[in-house]
Amino acid sequence: MNLFRFPARRAFAHCAPFPRRTHNCGDLNASHVGARVVLAGWLLPGRKGKLVSFFPLKDSYGTTQLILSHSQGFAELSALADVSAESSVLIEGTVSLRPEKDRRQGTTGEIDVQVEKFTVLNQAAPTLPFTPSNPFNLPNDDLRARYRYLDLRRTALSDNIKKRNFLEVETPVLLRSSPEGAREFLVPTRLPNANVSEKPLFYALQQSPQQPKQLLICSGGVDRYFQLAKCFRDEDGRKDRQPEFTQVDLEMAYVSWGPDIPAPSGFSDEWRIGGSEVRQVVESLIRKIWLQMEGITLPDQFRVMTYREAMTRYGSDKPDTRFGLEIMNITPHLPPDILSAYERNEEVLECIIVRKSRDSNFIRASKACKDNLDTCHIHFSQSNAETWLKGSGLGCELLNRLTPDRQVQLNTTLGLRYGDDIWLSKRSALPKGGSTSLGRVRLRLSELAQMHGDFAITADPHFLWITEFPLFTRADEDKDFLAKGRWSSSHHPFTAPMWQDIEAMYRGDIEQVRGQHYDLVLNGVEIGGGSVRVHDAAMQDYIFGKVLQVSGCRREGSSFYSLIGTLLLAFFPNAIFLCVFSFVSTFWWLPYATLAIAGEVPLAEHHLPISNFELTEQEKAPFDQLLHALKCGAPPHGGIALGFDRLMAILCKTQSIRDVIAFPKTSTGTDLLFKSPATIIEEALRQYGLRSRAETNTGGA
Amino acid sequence: MNLFRFPARRAFAHCAPFPRRTHNCGDLNASHVGARVVLAGWLLPGRKGKLVSFFPLKDSYGTTQLILSHSQGFAELSALADVSAESSVLIEGTVSLRPEKDRRQGTTGEIDVQVEKFTVLNQAAPTLPFTPSNPFNLPNDDLRARYRYLDLRRTALSDNIKKRNFLEVETPVLLRSSPEGAREFLVPTRLPNANVSEKPLFYALQQSPQQPKQLLICSGGVDRYFQLAKCFRDEDGRKDRQPEFTQVDLEMAYVSWGPDIPAPSGFSDEWRIGGSEVRQVVESLIRKIWLQMEGITLPDQFRVMTYREAMTRYGSDKPDTRFGLEIMNITPHLPPDILSAYERNEEVLECIIVRKSRDSNFIRASKACKDNLDTCHIHFSQSNAETWLKGSGLGCELLNRLTPDRQVQLNTTLGLRYGDDIWLSKRSALPKGGSTSLGRVRLRLSELAQMHGDFAITADPHFLWITEFPLFTRADEDKDFLAKGRWSSSHHPFTAPMWQDIEAMYRGDIEQVRGQHYDLVLNGVEIGGGSVRVHDAAMQDYIFGKVLQVSGCRREGSSFYSLIGTLLLAFFPNAIFLCVFSFVSTFWWLPYATLAIAGEVPLAEHHLPISNFELTEQEKAPFDQLLHALKCGAPPHGGIALGFDRLMAILCKTQSIRDVIAFPKTSTGTDLLFKSPATIIEEALRQYGLRSRAETNTGGA
Repeated sequence: MNLFRFPARRAFAHCAPFPRRTHNCGDLNASHVGARVVLAGWLLPGRKGKLVSFFPLKDSYGTTQLILSHSQGFAELSALADVSAESSVLIEGTVSLRPEKDRRQGTTGEIDVQVEKFTVLNQAAPTLPFTPSNPFNLPNDDLRARYRYLDLRRTALSDNIKKRNFLEVETPVLLRSSPEGAREFLVPTRLPNANVSEKPLFYALQQSPQQPKQLLICSGGVDRYFQLAKCFRDEDGRKDRQPEFTQVDLEMAYVSWGPDIPAPSGFSDEWRIGGSEVRQVVESLIRKIWLQMEGITLPDQFRVMTYREAMTRYGSDKPDTRFGLEIMNITPHLPPDILSAYERNEEVLECIIVRKSRDSNFIRASKACKDNLDTCHIHFSQSNAETWLKGSGLGCELLNRLTPDRQVQLNTTLGLRYGDDIWLSKRSALPKGGSTSLGRVRLRLSELAQMHGDFAITADPHFLWITEFPLFTRADEDKDFLAKGRWSSSHHPFTAPMWQDIEAMYRGDIEQVRGQHYDLVLNGVEIGGGSVRVHDAAMQDYIFGKVLQVSGCRREGSSFYSLIGTLLLAFFPNAIFLCVFSFVSTFWWLPYATLAIAGEVPLAEHHLPISNFELTEQEKAPFDQLLHALKCGAPPHGGIALGFDRLMAILCKTQSIRDVIAFPKTSTGTDLLFKSPATIIEEALRQYGLRSRAETNTGGA
Repeated sequence: MNLFRFPARRAFAHCAPFPRRTHNCGDLNASHVGARVVLAGWLLPGRKGKLVSFFPLKDSYGTTQLILSHSQGFAELSALADVSAESSVLIEGTVSLRPEKDRRQGTTGEIDVQVEKFTVLNQAAPTLPFTPSNPFNLPNDDLRARYRYLDLRRTALSDNIKKRNFLEVETPVLLRSSPEGAREFLVPTRLPNANVSEKPLFYALQQSPQQPKQLLICSGGVDRYFQLAKCFRDEDGRKDRQPEFTQVDLEMAYVSWGPDIPAPSGFSDEWRIGGSEVRQVVESLIRKIWLQMEGITLPDQFRVMTYREAMTRYGSDKPDTRFGLEIMNITPHLPPDILSAYERNEEVLECIIVRKSRDSNFIRASKACKDNLDTCHIHFSQSNAETWLKGSGLGCELLNRLTPDRQVQLNTTLGLRYGDDIWLSKRSALPKGGSTSLGRVRLRLSELAQMHGDFAITADPHFLWITEFPLFTRADEDKDFLAKGRWSSSHHPFTAPMWQDIEAMYRGDIEQVRGQHYDLVLNGVEIGGGSVRVHDAAMQDYIFGKVLQVSGCRREGSSFYSLIGTLLLAFFPNAIFLCVFSFVSTFWWLPYATLAIAGEVPLAEHHLPISNFELTEQEKAPFDQLLHALKCGAPPHGGIALGFDRLMAILCKTQSIRDVIAFPKTSTGTDLLFKSPATIIEEALRQYGLRSRAETNTGGA
């Protein structure tokens, strides 16, 4: 099946796979004449003619003039003339030399690009707060500050940022507090007149630069961003976590499916999502580090595995592939009646076989390992050869139907020998969460075998990408506070669905939707994660409002939205929810802010009681700016964050990140050297409009 | 006068100028045999013999074995054998080859250094919490965390930090809140059991990494540190200030007076303080930036000017030397009776002459410039040639004695011509603060002349070091909260006095004491500042307790302190305060924490009322760790911080730092894009043990 030309998907064409840029808009000159090129950038207002139109195409590097011929069978292209200014477009065309009289100074002043094909990647809303490409009509400072992501698209400003950091951009640490404020650190601010009854005001310390970095790329001011970002999380004491930590943070515009869009082959060991540029940059970075620091040459491309395969074979979404003991699905080998019963229940029966022959170095570990509630441990011998599965005590009545004959048949299929150990478990057919019971047993066996000195794990680093995670998960107890029993984002609500699953998402098959998320795993440790982001405001809107189901959610109407809505309705007439589009005129969102700000960092739990959950107007819109930025012609983009502390701990071959941090805090977040946190005097609290509850309780007022 | 051999200064020998290291302790090998070298590092426990003793000398790079001969007229050297382990020492000696049988693997394993001279730079306290050089007897994690600066001296740990950052070290952003908490941002932490009456606990966001970076260098784990440090200050809205900003932060061990200690010449355009390595590194960094970004080759060494000269000639501690209009002191040209009256009052009369001949491009500006209360503006003409000074209206009766004759005589001395403009002002003879009235007039004249198009200022960058600032200033109103009408540090309390002024400081001539502080000024803008730090715990103790006069201050006694105290008493028998040494046995300090944490950043003002100033035990010791670290053989050290935002604004030729920050905040600290700060729900406050005052006032409880 060709996934990319399915007609119903025209509505999502702007989210479809697209090829990698061959050049940026500041690259081309006379030496490229005749070359076929792929460019991406913002379409600026042009001169429209009857036969030919001219449009400047701008990106973070420069501007190239496009020529659009309205004749000669290029009629279809004329639609480009109707695309609103500041929209993000991909152009395929041929470089042509300008007539002598039209040549200008500067790199791209000698050439034009004859447009042969174009894709609107993100249509800008027809009216923007202001037009960054027009330097003569800039609004006042406050308006520009409010829409900083448009202001940064101005060359004058983005040049400063570029000069400053060579594209290493610093983002604010002091961000907005989200309504629940459960797991961020808050920073109270002094009130102008603290004696009057003013509500206290707070910043929040960034959990990751997720929103700022997306806004930066949306602005177009920066094409590729990186930062060694200091991040903060107010977590309950966990081993190997710090309240402040550092991540290597990347974000890139126009991340694509690669130089040539891969034909889908059906294999699950392929990178079948966007973000190929992120993959390439990270692999090259990691290769350099390992070569320089360890003297190890890593492969040109790291292995890729889908979430489903990782969960099935290793029982983990961050599998340690340095040793075997792979999990085996027994279900297909069961007699048809039992098999179909399992299928009806959407369950599978799986096992790890510790073979005396092949896995002798794990036999002692297997003996020493304790069963837990979800697994069962069987030593395979003559005495139980005909009954072990039936009598496994996994509480599965189905297995009672298993006759000795069939059992022996299964033994043969599994290649069992006396002396082998079997670890058995049952789980739901659709893998969920980060690990399965057998996945945990597998790791324990390796640990024990190493402890016993039976098994020496390889020193070679095993890098592995895990992709195609489920985009949404049923909120578990931890996330229930935010999701209220509905769906929640597996990583964060900005991750784009896989192109192949967009329809399913709009159809409401939420469980089936896979995200364009990727985790980088090293030796069973997640060292980074990221995704291709949603760049379509309507889709982001839908994810917030419909999938994550915020009740009472209203949306901003615009003719562009109406258009998308109408298109969607045309293709999915049964999708009643879509009629919400275009009828209402302001957003507001219930608080997904922690989800949002948590960014690349895995989501934290939320324990705050929700009974008293009242939001002021001010608290309702932590995503306004991102949604609006998406509407201003944001390019498709994606990024990643690598956990710097953990990476360094691995390179330093130490178990604790505290050994690679100059002044660490304890697992409970205290600093024994600087003796923080500490109390402050009540007087100091007053200026923030705060008082201690203890003070009030002991009679002070 | 030879300032460096004055016998009374033996007591301060460990603070005296010392030559630059020629090598580090990991450098030397057989190829250096016979070379005369200067090394610095920590003296480790050695093998003491009758004739010869061996000591390892360790620094951040390696270990070199020292040989100390007790015979052959080296008797004086034997004292080295009595220096306590982990003391910081400077060694001068000659490299010798080891006998074949004693040679070891590794760089320094083939050689020894025959000690010819040594200086104890910092004697370690005789009992340390633990001995970092002994890997076999490490205390528990908590104790090591508390004394992280000793722990980091262990090679195993410091190697991790080095591997991590190539000596770029990250320091904590979440630091300790100081008792007053006036100008830091505070971060409340969740309480384990928020319903019980617990006192709320807070971190404070770092104002600069001042204490961590000093501790890092004190540890010996890192020899030269740098960081692009994010800093935070809760300031009232100021133009061109941000609540979060970035500084290029440096700190270096063993900063010295240069390869050869300069003989003091008496000229005030010389670098007559320590920290020559900091100067060199910064100049080289700035030269590289200007060459790369501006194509400008800067001079090999930047100009140096003392604070006194800058204030006298330019009326500013950050003079803009791109134009003339220098200030002239008239006082010496006045008749003797008037002159001596001025001298009695400790005042000077000074002027700026805008000469029609030479300064014609400032004449229009001078006309347009407004007088203020402290200056007087005179247009010199035939009509006032004999009376202008007498009638200047500066409110100075002394000038009434000036006869027309003497006035004309003065006119000749000053070279006045009709049509010249004179700006006149009177000030105290000892310059104070950041600028004088005439200094401000001078800048205004330049601004106006540029506005009128009469004067085009040079595009060449004028870099300039200002040194020899007064170490202490009488607390002005702003700093009065902390200093309570006593002395306060001009920059911060960790800056070392000039070697020449140590005696004056201990004598109580506080006003005379100049600090080893240096500011880097570019075109009249301060772009950085730093200092050589106090590395002597007793001196730091004295500065806190006696100069900054914290009442009720007690000090820790130790035999080393007794020794210093006794020596000081011997040389300064009238210094009664010194007997405080050695009698008491614990520290506690009133809250200088803002002074401390403010670090390189100029001190902020403090408005908090002090009436209710009660400190808990926990709040009393924000400097314990630094003072203790100084006692563990801290090396002499110094550093600097450059304001990165301002530097970039200058390079980008923009007036506002907001133009070089991707997502800036307004001058009142609000973020119009992310809409921060924002309110939070009262529920969220509860977990921090806090409540809103507004809530309480409106009846909630």
